[in-house]
Amino acid sequence: GFARVDFHRERRKEFAEVIFAQNKTPEETALIAQKLYERHGRFLATRVSKDHFDAIKKLIPAATYNERAQTSACYQEGDPRPGTPLIITAGTSDLPVALEAEETLKFAGFKPLTLFDAGVAGIHRLFASIDLIRKADVIIAVAGMEGALPSVVAGLVSCPVIAVPTSVGYGANFQGLSALLTMLNSCAPGIGVVNIDNGFGAAALAISILGLKEK
Amino acid sequence: GFARVDFHRERRKEFAEVIFAQNKTPEETALIAQKLYERHGRFLATRVSKDHFDAIKKLIPAATYNERAQTSACYQEGDPRPGTPLIITAGTSDLPVALEAEETLKFAGFKPLTLFDAGVAGIHRLFASIDLIRKADVIIAVAGMEGALPSVVAGLVSCPVIAVPTSVGYGANFQGLSALLTMLNSCAPGIGVVNIDNGFGAAALAISILGLKEK
Amino acid sequence: GFARVDFHRERRKEFAEVIFAQNKTPEETALIAQKLYERHGRFLATRVSKDHFDAIKKLIPAATYNERAQTSACYQEGDPRPGTPLIITAGTSDLPVALEAEETLKFAGFKPLTLFDAGVAGIHRLFASIDLIRKADVIIAVAGMEGALPSVVAGLVSCPVIAVPTSVGYGANFQGLSALLTMLNSCAPGIGVVNIDNGFGAAALAISILGLKEK
Amino acid sequence: GFARVDFHRERRKEFAEVIFAQNKTPEETALIAQKLYERHGRFLATRVSKDHFDAIKKLIPAATYNERAQTSACYQEGDPRPGTPLIITAGTSDLPVALEAEETLKFAGFKPLTLFDAGVAGIHRLFASIDLIRKADVIIAVAGMEGALPSVVAGLVSCPVIAVPTSVGYGANFQGLSALLTMLNSCAPGIGVVNIDNGFGAAALAISILGLKEK
Amino acid sequence: GFARVDFHRERRKEFAEVIFAQNKTPEETALIAQKLYERHGRFLATRVSKDHFDAIKKLIPAATYNERAQTSACYQEGDPRPGTPLIITAGTSDLPVALEAEETLKFAGFKPLTLFDAGVAGIHRLFASIDLIRKADVIIAVAGMEGALPSVVAGLVSCPVIAVPTSVGYGANFQGLSALLTMLNSCAPGIGVVNIDNGFGAAALAISILGLKEK
Amino acid sequence: GFARVDFHRERRKEFAEVIFAQNKTPEETALIAQKLYERHGRFLATRVSKDHFDAIKKLIPAATYNERAQTSACYQEGDPRPGTPLIITAGTSDLPVALEAEETLKFAGFKPLTLFDAGVAGIHRLFASIDLIRKADVIIAVAGMEGALPSVVAGLVSCPVIAVPTSVGYGANFQGLSALLTMLNSCAPGIGVVNIDNGFGAAALAISILGLKEK
Amino acid sequence: GFARVDFHRERRKEFAEVIFAQNKTPEETALIAQKLYERHGRFLATRVSKDHFDAIKKLIPAATYNERAQTSACYQEGDPRPGTPLIITAGTSDLPVALEAEETLKFAGFKPLTLFDAGVAGIHRLFASIDLIRKADVIIAVAGMEGALPSVVAGLVSCPVIAVPTSVGYGANFQGLSALLTMLNSCAPGIGVVNIDNGFGAAALAISILGLKEK
Amino acid sequence: GFARVDFHRERRKEFAEVIFAQNKTPEETALIAQKLYERHGRFLATRVSKDHFDAIKKLIPAATYNERAQTSACYQEGDPRPGTPLIITAGTSDLPVALEAEETLKFAGFKPLTLFDAGVAGIHRLFASIDLIRKADVIIAVAGMEGALPSVVAGLVSCPVIAVPTSVGYGANFQGLSALLTMLNSCAPGIGVVNIDNGFGAAALAISILGLKEK
Ligand SMILES: Nc1ncnc2c1ncn2[C@@H]1O[C@H](COP(=O)(O)O)[C@@H](O)[C@H]1O
Ligand SMILES: Nc1ncnc2c1ncn2[C@@H]1O[C@H](COP(=O)(O)O)[C@@H](O)[C@H]1O
Ligand SMILES: Nc1ncnc2c1ncn2[C@@H]1O[C@H](COP(=O)(O)O)[C@@H](O)[C@H]1O
Ligand SMILES: Nc1ncnc2c1ncn2[C@@H]1O[C@H](COP(=O)(O)O)[C@@H](O)[C@H]1O
Ligand SMILES: [Mg+2]
Ligand SMILES: [Mg+2]
Ligand SMILES: [Mg+2]
Ligand SMILES: [Mg+2]
Ligand SMILES: [Mg+2]
Ligand SMILES: [Mg+2]
Ligand SMILES: [Mg+2]
Ligand SMILES: [Mg+2]
Repeated sequence: GFARVDFHRERRKEFAEVIFAQNKTPEETALIAQKLYERHGRFLATRVSKDHFDAIKKLIPAATYNERAQTSACYQEGDPRPGTPLIITAGTSDLPVALEAEETLKFAGFKPLTLFDAGVAGIHRLFASIDLIRKADVIIAVAGMEGALPSVVAGLVSCPVIAVPTSVGYGANFQGLSALLTMLNSCAPGIGVVNIDNGFGAAALAISILGLKEK
Repeated sequence: GFARVDFHRERRKEFAEVIFAQNKTPEETALIAQKLYERHGRFLATRVSKDHFDAIKKLIPAATYNERAQTSACYQEGDPRPGTPLIITAGTSDLPVALEAEETLKFAGFKPLTLFDAGVAGIHRLFASIDLIRKADVIIAVAGMEGALPSVVAGLVSCPVIAVPTSVGYGANFQGLSALLTMLNSCAPGIGVVNIDNGFGAAALAISILGLKEK
Repeated sequence: GFARVDFHRERRKEFAEVIFAQNKTPEETALIAQKLYERHGRFLATRVSKDHFDAIKKLIPAATYNERAQTSACYQEGDPRPGTPLIITAGTSDLPVALEAEETLKFAGFKPLTLFDAGVAGIHRLFASIDLIRKADVIIAVAGMEGALPSVVAGLVSCPVIAVPTSVGYGANFQGLSALLTMLNSCAPGIGVVNIDNGFGAAALAISILGLKEK
Repeated sequence: GFARVDFHRERRKEFAEVIFAQNKTPEETALIAQKLYERHGRFLATRVSKDHFDAIKKLIPAATYNERAQTSACYQEGDPRPGTPLIITAGTSDLPVALEAEETLKFAGFKPLTLFDAGVAGIHRLFASIDLIRKADVIIAVAGMEGALPSVVAGLVSCPVIAVPTSVGYGANFQGLSALLTMLNSCAPGIGVVNIDNGFGAAALAISILGLKEK
Repeated sequence: GFARVDFHRERRKEFAEVIFAQNKTPEETALIAQKLYERHGRFLATRVSKDHFDAIKKLIPAATYNERAQTSACYQEGDPRPGTPLIITAGTSDLPVALEAEETLKFAGFKPLTLFDAGVAGIHRLFASIDLIRKADVIIAVAGMEGALPSVVAGLVSCPVIAVPTSVGYGANFQGLSALLTMLNSCAPGIGVVNIDNGFGAAALAISILGLKEK
Repeated sequence: GFARVDFHRERRKEFAEVIFAQNKTPEETALIAQKLYERHGRFLATRVSKDHFDAIKKLIPAATYNERAQTSACYQEGDPRPGTPLIITAGTSDLPVALEAEETLKFAGFKPLTLFDAGVAGIHRLFASIDLIRKADVIIAVAGMEGALPSVVAGLVSCPVIAVPTSVGYGANFQGLSALLTMLNSCAPGIGVVNIDNGFGAAALAISILGLKEK
Repeated sequence: GFARVDFHRERRKEFAEVIFAQNKTPEETALIAQKLYERHGRFLATRVSKDHFDAIKKLIPAATYNERAQTSACYQEGDPRPGTPLIITAGTSDLPVALEAEETLKFAGFKPLTLFDAGVAGIHRLFASIDLIRKADVIIAVAGMEGALPSVVAGLVSCPVIAVPTSVGYGANFQGLSALLTMLNSCAPGIGVVNIDNGFGAAALAISILGLKEK
Repeated sequence: GFARVDFHRERRKEFAEVIFAQNKTPEETALIAQKLYERHGRFLATRVSKDHFDAIKKLIPAATYNERAQTSACYQEGDPRPGTPLIITAGTSDLPVALEAEETLKFAGFKPLTLFDAGVAGIHRLFASIDLIRKADVIIAVAGMEGALPSVVAGLVSCPVIAVPTSVGYGANFQGLSALLTMLNSCAPGIGVVNIDNGFGAAALAISILGLKEK
């Protein structure tokens, strides 16, 4: 029969404990977190508002909250997994998206490097950190406004670059469309793009890429 | 001084011999191909029309042409590099884009697996090949129309999935916009998206991912 | 004369008692509900906020409110009409739209089946319910984000599938545009699409389809 | 095991013999037509150019061509199936799309009624045929430009209306976008929309709806 | 010199006393109203919020407020000017836009006829009032959602029809874009379109048209 | 009964003899022209290609062709109707659209004034003709690129201004979208907009406006 | 080594002390302002809300706030720099954007001329100030709605015109898109466009242009 | 009177002899060129096809043609005007747009510097020419695809940067929209943007900027 073919086993194991809270009520979110926590001893929730966290906290007192990342979690750190992800942002306003990625990577057992506020308008900031950049096995490049950062980064390294457009900007930015189109049209080879503001998705792709080190 | 810092060394080595012919005249393309061929003993050109190839052929008689992939190349196959890329397409119309990716992967030294015409409207075609799919280190999923293939594939595996929207379709497809948005909004974690019809870019990302196996 | 040709008789009889509250004040809505209730002994209102309902409640104390569906109604259930509609959602966030459809179908005298949170990223959830799916005379498939659910469902059945895109998602989702385009471009035959978040419209189409069973 | 679950049996049987020629070479199209014709004794192809048909004709001399519908077919008419589909167009320019729908319905065994050039700018044309319109079990309403026809039709009947926007028009029509949006936003209940110019898809939905008469 | 050529005299005289309050503070609006009132003995302001009106009221105690039209005015009615404008709306939700037009026409000295909630989904409502419709010298047709009303109206009369799309609707309505495109693409001759929700602009055009009666 | 109410009588009489050739074959166009010519002794066709005209010429040897306007016609000029329409264009590239309007006005019996190549970038050209402009009862202002002409014109006169955006331009013009949006957002009161490149529609609106002079 | 090449020296010196507060918390903004003030004895912040300013005021008591410009600053005026910038707005609603530009120019040491509420619908207002306009070395033209002002201005002068679209308007204005497209498509030579509502950017460009006077 | 105020004198003198041939017939273009050549002894035409040039050549035998720039001209070089414009392109495909700018600058009497194929994906190419870049009084930065070049350039200099998006690219480039949005959203101060592919417009802005050196 059908049910015995476990199609969903592989990928699911990695992300089964991550909750997307945005479209859920605080109560729903807290209940799912509790269920996951009881079954697996761990959970991570993204897009968690203060209200969401208050509800979680009541059911899981040990849960923590990263307000800027809008994530809540409860898990025990194990030995770090092999592989070095690096998160770079163009500006300080891109931080929440970068931190969502960072929290997801940590939850998955990685120790991400970070380099914030290194946008291309002042390109010396990027070059000053070239040694750090060269250490990475995979780079998550987060940028709003014109979103040129991933193009420049991908011209400097040979590892895969995950481009995350953010909705930071105004006017002809059209809520991140500008940065999204920039990244999709990059002349630099080796770039994969995720949805606007999708720090979680960038981390998820980084994790599946780093998985090659363990095969 | 500045010039001695070789910023561009790393990635460049991988793609220095690839020519994007689309916006070049046949003569320009042939001359660049010849120059690369003389210096490196190899070249690959993408978006190569019949006219482009005729010009190349005059200067490099050993050059070959893959008409459907719209690529021309001349190189000696070496020992295959480690790592298994798989290219899946939703329909037969997506073939040119898939073949551009395949030619690029071969040029870079990989032996890509392929699974064509496996779209989600007849999802049994995908499931019948589940063993093949599970062999891949990285999957390039190519689809036009509604572009749902990468979502389904990424739900079945844990390796990274590179999603390539194609311009195949009509009406509300808006030259590939529909498939592009589908892929960017996928609920399935582990997907990176490239530009519409960008088979080369998908291969370039796959190559940088597979590079982790050689580190 | 003109007025004696009753053009509007047929369809009108089915939906004359349904109020679209969104652009009406609570007082207007309540007054219309009361007028319909007095004339027909029944009414249904959609897009009903808490304020709307409070006003209705004052005039029709027997009226009920489904907060998640945002519907209010008052009617007596009769014998169920022939035909089996099934409502499927991709995620829990699509629930309000699905429930609007469910309430409309119930009001029209049908007994809808439901299958919630069965999105394609974890396609086993859908297949586990294949027997339920095959029972349907018409299926309402509700999905946000990339909106791939109707494509997969329509590949599994021969009955008509009504696709409802929802505005659930963020970034390149563009308030439901992504799911809408996906559904319009579906390769799977047998799909009709309604407006974003239009649970009522999906039910209305299902009702007119199920009407064929009574002809 | 998996292969024995025949997920795709139901819907597939209806449309297995229909070829979408648009993105295929004449030779590919002819070969697929021949294969289908040998196995099932019948085939239908849509979006068939003159070149496509010439290639088909060589392999299947009995094949016919409807140039305006851009369809080619070869099959034996059987007894008509129960159910009355009606195809209405707003203008003569919408004919090719309407004829694609008509040919598909005929191939599936139905005898469609037709009412062409009955757009809303001269609404008397529609009303003059009110008796014909009332005979239908399902109506396919085809319109370009502002696309208001399905709204008016759905206000006159209680059967399901399938709305097909066409790319007929210019300027702010944006290749059919105008008619598409009109149809999706219709105030009249009982409308399902298909892709721009998708006469085949409209017929496919009509067929699955009419299937209820045979259950 | 330049200043003596009074380019702006003609049109200006008609609309010099109309204030667009939307982007002004209550205080600014009130001050401009007062200045106009002192100089001309009359004023009209559109897009007037309750706060705006409170500020006006303090300076011009005789000023009145039409809350639904969002207009405030103070003037003495004179003898009606020749010409019969008619305002038709598709639904009750289009009322505020229609009332802005009505107030502007009254301020200019006209006596507009009105016909509200006469949308095309129940086209009998329109036909029942055919005699009223035929009385008009110019018709302002206001509609949201799919916006088909002006097309149908323009098919019934020979006078000019001014089409006003409204932002009433949701989803693929895109804040009035759907109705706007419908109106621009109308097959019916004799239609001029104004901006979304621009009741004032429709009245201004009607007034300049009716001016021909006085030439 | 219904048929006796002649809803379509009024407007129809004005435009019954105008053919929109764009989506018709030469043969169809010629046959319709012939039928109209036989019944009414006159016809006008717009969007007429050379091929269209050749077919018309065979059936109606007296037919004439205005190649730049893309119109063909055959009728006898009568006494001019009262009312003075004026057509202004911003540039010479807007001529075909302006001429389509001019031919339509002539066919309807008017004697249009014209003022071509008077765009706002060299605003002195407009002012030099201020006396001509002030003569008009209705103005058709035709402009591509940024489309600012109608705004400036409407600031100088009190008669109605019909704004026709053209697709003249490139890049961020988006085939006339830029001029269309400019005209819809004009600050100057008294403007009605028609579809991009719709010279016929502008004339049709002008004709229905000038009809007030004959009431 | 790299760090000694001071790539960023030149432009940076001009704008190093300007803070973009919009995406920063009040605390962050105040701390950065303080740091700049300590190092350079001056700072300017744009997009400063009342909350931002309160936080700044606590750390820098001498800081001033321009509420309408949404700027805060603290610096000593020096001798004016050579060069005459002029800021023109179409309407009073465009004032905040114009004032942001003015404050930036003053901070950079210039004495900007201003001409507000001079839009093209009443073009005499512009011409009445022709002498002022001719004095400018560079003009910043700020306009919302249809945004035609820069076209007309650039037709009157030979100095560079910086066009700033604003988001003032409604409906088909699409938050400034209309004015943006108008300005990009202007027929008048000598115009450079900046982002919607970007008064700062316009001033920054003006400053770099005026820099030529000091070379 | 009006005519004596010569509003158009200033800017007009600079560009009176430049023809935009794109929407003109070869004959019209040649006649205008001849008229200008006779009056001023010089002319420049842009967007000139081979057919255009053939017609010009017949009337002005001394006229020259730059096929890649698509310009034709006839004039005598005078002494160079003060000021150093620099044109940089991202790729070789951007050349036609850059050459249109170059020809326009030369025609106006400037000696432009050029730096072609210096895109940001290989940013070392840009830095290797830093001395050349620093020489410029104004820079025209031309780029397609993601269009990041102006951002990086403007981070390196203090002179004004004119950003020209090109339509080079495919897919999500949307005919230059991607590069256009990138440039409008640039974080780097000192950038003015012109229309997609508008090399002439960029030069026109550069010329009006360089005019400050002559004041
Ligand atoms: N911030 C996020 N953005 C997109 N997807 C997410 C995010 N956080 C979690 N997810 C995904 O959402 C899934 C859970 O969705 P749900 O069942 O609706 O809570 C997880 O397995 C993740 O794949
Ligand atoms: N099909 C393609 N799509 C996008 N980029 C490509 C493609 N083929 C080659 N390239 C890139 O183009 C570069 C060469 O560009 P060029 O110097 O303009 O020939 C190579 O290094 C690749 O990075
Ligand atoms: N949620 C909904 N979305 C769209 N249409 C609706 C909805 N609910 C009710 N309607 C329709 O709106 C009509 C009533 O509109 P109204 O007269 O404005 O209350 C009903 O006859 C239904 O056809
Ligand atoms: N609701 C409205 N929409 C568009 N324009 C308006 C509106 N109300 C008034 N106006 C116009 O705005 C002008 C006054 O604008 P202002 O000087 O900004 O108050 C009047 O002369 C009218 O032409
Ligand atoms: Mg920063
Ligand atoms: Mg297939
Ligand atoms: Mg879920
Ligand atoms: Mg017709
Ligand atoms: Mg109603
Ligand atoms: Mg001209
Ligand atoms: Mg004003
Ligand atoms: Mg290159």
